[in-house]
Amino acid sequence: MKLTCNKDLLLQYINIVNKAVSNRTTLPILECILLTADEKGFVLTANDLEIGIKTAPISAEITEKGEVALEARILNDIVRRLNGDTVTLETDENYAVHITCGSSQFKIMGQSGEDFPDLPEVKQEQFYTMEQNTLRDMIRQTIFSIAQNDSKPVLTGELFQWQAESVNVVSVDGYRISFRKNPLQHSSGQTEVIVPGKTLSELHKILSQEAESTLSVYLTDKHILFDLGVAVMVSRLIEGDFIRYEQSFSEDYKTKVVMYREELIQALERASLVSRDNRKTPVRMMIRSGGMDITARSDMGTAHETVPGEVEGEELSIAFNPRYLIEALRSIEEEQVKIHFIAPLSPCTILPVEGDAFKYLILPLRM
Amino acid sequence: MKLTCNKDLLLQYINIVNKAVSNRTTLPILECILLTADEKGFVLTANDLEIGIKTAPISAEITEKGEVALEARILNDIVRRLNGDTVTLETDENYAVHITCGSSQFKIMGQSGEDFPDLPEVKQEQFYTMEQNTLRDMIRQTIFSIAQNDSKPVLTGELFQWQAESVNVVSVDGYRISFRKNPLQHSSGQTEVIVPGKTLSELHKILSQEAESTLSVYLTDKHILFDLGVAVMVSRLIEGDFIRYEQSFSEDYKTKVVMYREELIQALERASLVSRDNRKTPVRMMIRSGGMDITARSDMGTAHETVPGEVEGEELSIAFNPRYLIEALRSIEEEQVKIHFIAPLSPCTILPVEGDAFKYLILPLRM
Repeated sequence: MKLTCNKDLLLQYINIVNKAVSNRTTLPILECILLTADEKGFVLTANDLEIGIKTAPISAEITEKGEVALEARILNDIVRRLNGDTVTLETDENYAVHITCGSSQFKIMGQSGEDFPDLPEVKQEQFYTMEQNTLRDMIRQTIFSIAQNDSKPVLTGELFQWQAESVNVVSVDGYRISFRKNPLQHSSGQTEVIVPGKTLSELHKILSQEAESTLSVYLTDKHILFDLGVAVMVSRLIEGDFIRYEQSFSEDYKTKVVMYREELIQALERASLVSRDNRKTPVRMMIRSGGMDITARSDMGTAHETVPGEVEGEELSIAFNPRYLIEALRSIEEEQVKIHFIAPLSPCTILPVEGDAFKYLILPLRM
Repeated sequence: MKLTCNKDLLLQYINIVNKAVSNRTTLPILECILLTADEKGFVLTANDLEIGIKTAPISAEITEKGEVALEARILNDIVRRLNGDTVTLETDENYAVHITCGSSQFKIMGQSGEDFPDLPEVKQEQFYTMEQNTLRDMIRQTIFSIAQNDSKPVLTGELFQWQAESVNVVSVDGYRISFRKNPLQHSSGQTEVIVPGKTLSELHKILSQEAESTLSVYLTDKHILFDLGVAVMVSRLIEGDFIRYEQSFSEDYKTKVVMYREELIQALERASLVSRDNRKTPVRMMIRSGGMDITARSDMGTAHETVPGEVEGEELSIAFNPRYLIEALRSIEEEQVKIHFIAPLSPCTILPVEGDAFKYLILPLRM
């Protein structure tokens, strides 16, 4: 292999495939990036056997075809620090890669690309199209409530409910449910899959932040493929049935509160300061006409906050783990939120003041 | 005690005394900040028995004198997040402190101030005055080469050589010497002290970055006091004799190189990338007419860099731990540096192209 390309462009693509490079050392080839130069162009691939990423062809002048696997960390470190505009990559018969740029010449030991695992094949038939920005937001706004231990493996992923015109993304741990809904630009019809949390957190890092960038999503029984234009990411799906979360949400409520989101977050954050145990001390909310009082108490002392709000319905006293409320409230962008309460031992639901773009359910604590 | 003051001002002073709050838990009072309101004003003090800091009086409306010790972490966390402009602090008979600001009311358990250790007394007779900015720079430019283990306790501090018109700051570990020299605005004459590295690294954080801010330094046999205006910091000194570093610097050289500092740093950084062991792989410099070639070699591969420079004298091949060269070069601000070499197994000296504001000596490695 011998080729010349723009250094900054190469670095940009390395940063994309890096998200699928393995950190475990049992299979050293998985710590590599596969560099391929053939009639289709110059392409980078990484694959940790859970997630695989393959770039679109990178603009390059290829003078000799070939492929080689190179340790991702060293390739990234070197390209990031090179001081020229153009970089030349050339392999010799022992899979050593000569990297030349500006005043630098490196010779780095690589491996044959033959042992590099292929990405799973995903037939590009049924597909869904949406804005990359939108999916980015949906992941950020739900991923914090996936289950952290894998006693129920389906809960370590997020449910994607593809529908005719919209998609729901749902995550559930034992204490809360996060639900987001957004329109699709194209839909091949109704279906449900569970995508691993790790896949979504890596995908989140490479989704474009530019307005109007779209992506297409393709599905098989076992895999999901995200086509971002600059690269495709393929991931296994989690098998099994997701829990029937819909029945946990109730339309009924006894108390309705509308508040400025940021004011409520700040008050909850301050009230949690009297907690020594990583802010797990419960906060008590006393909802009354005109707003709520928030109190917290520990051996360090007490905190008392008042937050104004529009309150309808019965007065109520209810306790929560403040972190769960804060994480849900932080993920929302709207200036104001609506919160429905039923009883001191029933979950509350955080909703938009108008519309149905999200709902967050949080279980209270028994005081 | 009862007083009202500006919240941002209070936070600013908390951040200053925080540098002398202890992290160890054997003596809980040392994790506190002492709040004192008396006829001299409202003052904060912290003291970990190595370093003590006491602020100048903070502008406040004192309605009741008194003092109380409050855990620094909780005080800082609360004041940082309060949402009003003005904060009221009031103690009750059990040393609980009521903190009121905006929509928040906290009651935090404090302790009697009686057990709080006094700062050592330093007679303000002999003193030295310089710009805070200058001392900041001198600390940053030398502190990286203090000894990390305390087999020779004097080397865990820095030597301050106070002279009639200037001060030298010197640090030495087993492999290198860092030396900086700067003029004084006022001097009470020649004397030498060894200041603990921990003191200097905390002092560095609170020295003003504003031009023309000055500080005065007062000395006793056992203590040093830095008067920054907003606060005084008192530290113990390290007893013992510093090593006679002067004799290690030689005026002679066989090879002289003048280079752009940043070009040399970048080349050394890149050459160290082929090292697996935290960049400890030696780099070899081959100095020849017109500049130097830098090479490094490990099981990962090889790196070769060329750096142009003005070279006078003999050609030379010499090896170094790249980190030692990089740390010294990074601490310098001049665009170009001069490096003197004597022989492959003799130390090199990094000097300014003109003047004597600094010198860095680094031992080579035997290859």
